[in-house]
Amino acid sequence: MGNLSYAILGTGALGGFYGAKLQKAGNEVHFLLNSDYQQVSQNGLIVESKDGDFLLPQVNAYNNVNKMPSCDVVVVALKTTQNHLLTQIVPPVVKNNGIVLVLQNGLGIETEVVQIVNNVTVIGGLCFLCSNKVGAGHIHHLDYGKITLGEYALNYHPVGITARMRAIAKDFENAGIEIELTEDLLLGRWKKLVWNIPYNGLSVILDATTDELMTNLYTRTLVEQLMFEVQLGAKSTGRILPDSFIHTMLEYTVNMKPYRTSMKIDFDENRPLEVEAIVGNPLRIAAANDFSLPLIRCLYQQLKFLDRRNSL
Amino acid sequence: MGNLSYAILGTGALGGFYGAKLQKAGNEVHFLLNSDYQQVSQNGLIVESKDGDFLLPQVNAYNNVNKMPSCDVVVVALKTTQNHLLTQIVPPVVKNNGIVLVLQNGLGIETEVVQIVNNVTVIGGLCFLCSNKVGAGHIHHLDYGKITLGEYALNYHPVGITARMRAIAKDFENAGIEIELTEDLLLGRWKKLVWNIPYNGLSVILDATTDELMTNLYTRTLVEQLMFEVQLGAKSTGRILPDSFIHTMLEYTVNMKPYRTSMKIDFDENRPLEVEAIVGNPLRIAAANDFSLPLIRCLYQQLKFLDRRNSL
Repeated sequence: MGNLSYAILGTGALGGFYGAKLQKAGNEVHFLLNSDYQQVSQNGLIVESKDGDFLLPQVNAYNNVNKMPSCDVVVVALKTTQNHLLTQIVPPVVKNNGIVLVLQNGLGIETEVVQIVNNVTVIGGLCFLCSNKVGAGHIHHLDYGKITLGEYALNYHPVGITARMRAIAKDFENAGIEIELTEDLLLGRWKKLVWNIPYNGLSVILDATTDELMTNLYTRTLVEQLMFEVQLGAKSTGRILPDSFIHTMLEYTVNMKPYRTSMKIDFDENRPLEVEAIVGNPLRIAAANDFSLPLIRCLYQQLKFLDRRNSL
Repeated sequence: MGNLSYAILGTGALGGFYGAKLQKAGNEVHFLLNSDYQQVSQNGLIVESKDGDFLLPQVNAYNNVNKMPSCDVVVVALKTTQNHLLTQIVPPVVKNNGIVLVLQNGLGIETEVVQIVNNVTVIGGLCFLCSNKVGAGHIHHLDYGKITLGEYALNYHPVGITARMRAIAKDFENAGIEIELTEDLLLGRWKKLVWNIPYNGLSVILDATTDELMTNLYTRTLVEQLMFEVQLGAKSTGRILPDSFIHTMLEYTVNMKPYRTSMKIDFDENRPLEVEAIVGNPLRIAAANDFSLPLIRCLYQQLKFLDRRNSL
């Protein structure tokens, strides 16, 4: 394919970071913005990063998708709580035979995306990124950045490593972003949920950082029980996560620096929580396959209560 | 029996209220106090009550059980978090062939009490009381007050209505306290847990009043699911709670005034939570009978985390 053009839908901590890295490496990138549009169209983007700070004084900034050119790759970098906008903003910017790259957490989003576009490949990307937006057009990249890419096919049927995945991987790697390719996007998404469901959920419910959850024996056990329920959810869709993966995740988190999860940050900033994508969709997908996940359902109910009150 | 004498172990919002009512009605009452001892031994007890305020300028106040006379009825009115003291404070004050009346929440406490006294009848009392201690020796009775009494026998075998229960009931009724007698103490305790486990637990975890929990559809459903797990716990000990009882409790709570539960008050006041008596013991008793209660266990783990952090 070569020389892919990129549209970044949602120029925040995640979309702004990856988009800026791609442009810096020489790719054509178009940024959709909302509240930061004025600032960014005049002054560009600033990225402070542990890998080196840089400034892009001039970027292609838009506040309206209909003014954007069609691009080879449309990067969905909104929070999933904004996904009701996708039907309006994705179709105008994606080329025929183009790619929609969904860089979001949770489950079931690719299934929604294929329903709103035709002749388009949908690729899911799981980002391990620690980044904040600290001001308009100003991104602070704290750590990590790796993306696991997997191509979507009907019902998450695994399709192996495709040429399109490799093309995107090449651009991102050129831009200094570590990429892993997975033959099974759904397996990758469940693996990420093993971490995301317990830590995002309990961090909000108990107002806790990851280290607090792991130091207390009761919540450590609860985290583990929740992880085993995610394993059961994966099994309900025919994906096997070995017990050793769960033990690795627990060990990994014990050894991490104390961490405030993304859902906790959203909660503290009074933003809507990604409860449906991260907790509700896995629950519903497991239920559709006749698996009940009682602890995850309990977390879901508690989070829905807190999310609603937080929005009042 | 006639003319029973009473020792009140724990002269707080509950023990102070019932003890004062008994003394006002002419019973001999001895009050064990801790921090309020000086104040109460000099100035007595004040009860502000929706049923009429009254002052007892002179009460039998003690700060040491060994100075108290042996009484016919020893009323355990401490919080269950203080129950490690029972081995020291109950035996010295209870007459041979006397009664220990346990006015505490939760499960399994009578079993502990019979292990520390001989030749004594143990009666459990379930209090439906809304009362606060607003100052030293100063009690504010807001609402309710009814007590359900049931006599304990080995393994909570139901023993029907006994003469001792009737004798206590007579004194309390003379003092203006509504009494219900139950033939099956364990059934009564499980019934109370149908309310106490979901509302006490979730009110602390979600920082919520009863009306907030019932207005939100997600937590309302969670409350109901927790109630059905309590029903399962009761079943594990051979006690049948009909579904209609659960629906009555839900309806009753919807129609109550917004209420801050006793566990939430303890939490807000930085006092230890009665997690073990109210949540841990039911879990362990069900587990010993091979019943698992996953949602109640999840609540327990969350509460243990919060209780520990609250005590730091």
